[in-house]
Amino acid sequence: MIIIGEKINGFIPRTLAAIEDRDEKYIRFLAEKQSERNAKYLDICAGVAPEKERDTLKWLCEVVQSATDTPICLDSSDPQILVDMIAEIEVPGMINSVSLEANKCEIVLSKIADSDWKVIALTCDDNGTPDDPSVKFDIACKLIAKANAVGITNDRIFIDPLVTTLATKENSLVSFTKAIRLIRAEFPDVHITSGLSNISYGMPNRKAINMQFLSLSMAAGMDSAILDPLSPDMQATIHATDALLGNDEFCMEYIAAYRAGLFDN
Amino acid sequence: MIIIGEKINGFIPRTLAAIEDRDEKYIRFLAEKQSERNAKYLDICAGVAPEKERDTLKWLCEVVQSATDTPICLDSSDPQILVDMIAEIEVPGMINSVSLEANKCEIVLSKIADSDWKVIALTCDDNGTPDDPSVKFDIACKLIAKANAVGITNDRIFIDPLVTTLATKENSLVSFTKAIRLIRAEFPDVHITSGLSNISYGMPNRKAINMQFLSLSMAAGMDSAILDPLSPDMQATIHATDALLGNDEFCMEYIAAYRAGLFDN
Repeated sequence: MIIIGEKINGFIPRTLAAIEDRDEKYIRFLAEKQSERNAKYLDICAGVAPEKERDTLKWLCEVVQSATDTPICLDSSDPQILVDMIAEIEVPGMINSVSLEANKCEIVLSKIADSDWKVIALTCDDNGTPDDPSVKFDIACKLIAKANAVGITNDRIFIDPLVTTLATKENSLVSFTKAIRLIRAEFPDVHITSGLSNISYGMPNRKAINMQFLSLSMAAGMDSAILDPLSPDMQATIHATDALLGNDEFCMEYIAAYRAGLFDN
Repeated sequence: MIIIGEKINGFIPRTLAAIEDRDEKYIRFLAEKQSERNAKYLDICAGVAPEKERDTLKWLCEVVQSATDTPICLDSSDPQILVDMIAEIEVPGMINSVSLEANKCEIVLSKIADSDWKVIALTCDDNGTPDDPSVKFDIACKLIAKANAVGITNDRIFIDPLVTTLATKENSLVSFTKAIRLIRAEFPDVHITSGLSNISYGMPNRKAINMQFLSLSMAAGMDSAILDPLSPDMQATIHATDALLGNDEFCMEYIAAYRAGLFDN
């Protein structure tokens, strides 16, 4: 599992407070702790008003790069900001995200073509976010074709099949895992990722939903997630599921993670 | 999910102490609490020396029947004891278990043929417990044929495809879920059940393994389990997984279980 650490995000109130106070120490703490706990990328999202977004992202990238070498996952809904920020970053990371909406692909993909940057591609377009797994799959095919056309290989593409909210659509997970299976069957070497928050929105005890969402999606072929690596429950779910799916010989990685304290509160 | 409550079992040290002290109050407590928390059957296993097993089971059945109407799941490795105990029980319950070992089927199945008793049938025979999912499936077919031959319909049969220990066989869950899918495809109306303890034997943080075992097996088609219904983690796993698999319209059962306190410690 490729973990993308979600904690440095201005939509999280505690992180927003640190951003507004320019609290370098707290942002460094989040960068270091997530890296220690197996985050392979650190998502960086400003979560502030548009006019402050560039300065905020720039500051966040400086602080994070001073704290760790873990690659950054640049997170913005503005594709121009995403490509402009690349110049601020030393170690090639990940763009979060493109989709078939407007001209996002056109702005981003050619910019990262001749680099080691990865890209998260969401299965939505100007018609919105589809529920139908075959429509999610069709959009994934188009996104992969656009990336391949400029020379981005499949191992640099992270498809996010955009899970919907379970409380309002009872087939959310079923549709999501069907889309994963369709994508995995056609493109065995692309990565498939997701955030965890949409599925459990509006439900009590969201952690239980998130844990089983993760497990069932991994069984379907998801190999990455944007989540909190500091959560012992998420770490235990990932390592237990990996072992159960036969990806962990003699459970050595599970036991090592346990010994390293990843499951401890 | 059909929960078979596992707590009244002499192999659990606290329960064994209550059995040895003939502590009626504690056994009643386990019977009532498990029933309140959605146990549809209460497993009763003496866990004492063979010469004391009949008397112990008889006492346990008396106490449990005085506490609740929840049907009993009679648990013994001795098929003659199982059939002899039926006379002690008012509400038809479940026999745990038969298999293709020795003459277990012959002793038990005809005895419960003209009744409402259910039966757990394990996929093992005199050669032991197979790892190969197709061998598990073959044994399940033979067990179902034997039960059908005396008039036991598929909805009274609970097949247990006997999961092995993950720490020693990394394909334990994969083989188990393959067997479930084979059985489910051929016999949509049989029940499929399992205990939770084998999979995680010898591992640290067994709860994490057990939770994801449950979730992944439910996704494969398992519709019953022998487990601790007093565990908030198991309840949350069952209800979250059921909702995610699309079996819980608008998550009403998940929310009801949350409100009823089933997820609370």
